[in-house]
Amino acid sequence: MIEPNMATMIGMLTTDARVSPALLRQALLESARDTFNAITVDGECSTNDTLFAMASGSSGVDIDDDGYPLLVEAFLAVSRPLAIDIVRGGEGATKLIAVAVHDARTRDDARQVARTIANSPLVKTAVHGADPNWGRIVAAAGRSGVQFDVQRATVHVGDVLLFEHGLPHDDAAPRAAEHMKGKDVRIDVNLGTGGGVAATIWTCDLTAEYVRINGEYRT
Amino acid sequence: MIEPNMATMIGMLTTDARVSPALLRQALLESARDTFNAITVDGECSTNDTLFAMASGSSGVDIDDDGYPLLVEAFLAVSRPLAIDIVRGGEGATKLIAVAVHDARTRDDARQVARTIANSPLVKTAVHGADPNWGRIVAAAGRSGVQFDVQRATVHVGDVLLFEHGLPHDDAAPRAAEHMKGKDVRIDVNLGTGGGVAATIWTCDLTAEYVRINGEYRT
Repeated sequence: MIEPNMATMIGMLTTDARVSPALLRQALLESARDTFNAITVDGECSTNDTLFAMASGSSGVDIDDDGYPLLVEAFLAVSRPLAIDIVRGGEGATKLIAVAVHDARTRDDARQVARTIANSPLVKTAVHGADPNWGRIVAAAGRSGVQFDVQRATVHVGDVLLFEHGLPHDDAAPRAAEHMKGKDVRIDVNLGTGGGVAATIWTCDLTAEYVRINGEYRT
Repeated sequence: MIEPNMATMIGMLTTDARVSPALLRQALLESARDTFNAITVDGECSTNDTLFAMASGSSGVDIDDDGYPLLVEAFLAVSRPLAIDIVRGGEGATKLIAVAVHDARTRDDARQVARTIANSPLVKTAVHGADPNWGRIVAAAGRSGVQFDVQRATVHVGDVLLFEHGLPHDDAAPRAAEHMKGKDVRIDVNLGTGGGVAATIWTCDLTAEYVRINGEYRT
């Protein structure tokens, strides 16, 4: 039951800097977008999601617009591993999957393609079985609702180029499968739009244990 | 890999009536909307979907605008059991689930709510475990993107009223669980908008066998 907006979580970020409420809120939203709001286990929303930020000001250090990027960077550094740990702890998960989409026209496009791949049961079961099934990845991207040119797109699994110019590199599949046998799987899709915008969504594999946990759990 | 538009299928409807191509096409689209385009197994599109209709005219019977409703009715009668059989044959499926949404404002709203429930992994695993988990059904409806008033909505599982006025009927859960132990599960959600529009989406349960089939299948 993990998908943004957020997961089943209560998060709290604190700083002893002096930050205005407006700037603190902005930093929280910006850092959450690419961390706690960039994870999914099964596409299901939770009813219990909260993320706070609190600034005590006790250090006497002021954060203004100039210092803002540093504050965001610090929030990202704290939030990203926590968000990823939520996915690693997903129901029945055995693998973390980072789905990165590159060279989209907009951030929303990049996120939508990444999220569609990340929530695809066929992609998630393929990763579980360490099957570098480029067709499922490309099909999910193609149905994401974002304009998708199969001739321009490339797909990497780990460092292995699996798909380009509308065709698979079948001889690369065994090396991609090796990568998928690990605990950390990386899928990179380049949309080739020239827009240059990227986004990453983290998810996990779909396993029989997921079914057991959610099928046996009784209300 | 079964979701409309259609499933992995080639369908062919034939009639010996005399029908104009335009009317035949309209009847095909209208009947497909509530049959072959109203089923899902895992929300994944297929690359191989086709539905034809052919009218030979050999009977000499003309179908014009007056006869059109009868033609649609006939197409529906032929298509519905075939569409439902596709779901029954879904990867690892052990149960057919009919998700009917009632009293929506528009047909699109009704379909969107029904489809969100039908594709929810938590609902599908709950049905697999015969768990009348009203919370998962209501949560899916609530995140469907359609305006949803939890105070007006009701949820039935089979003939059993599980949820109304924002509260569950916990004492009804055992009877709902009995219904869910069968091969044919019915979930009815009434949105209470006063719009009076209904739609049904058919899906199946999510099982460990689904994971096995799609995780072990090799490209």
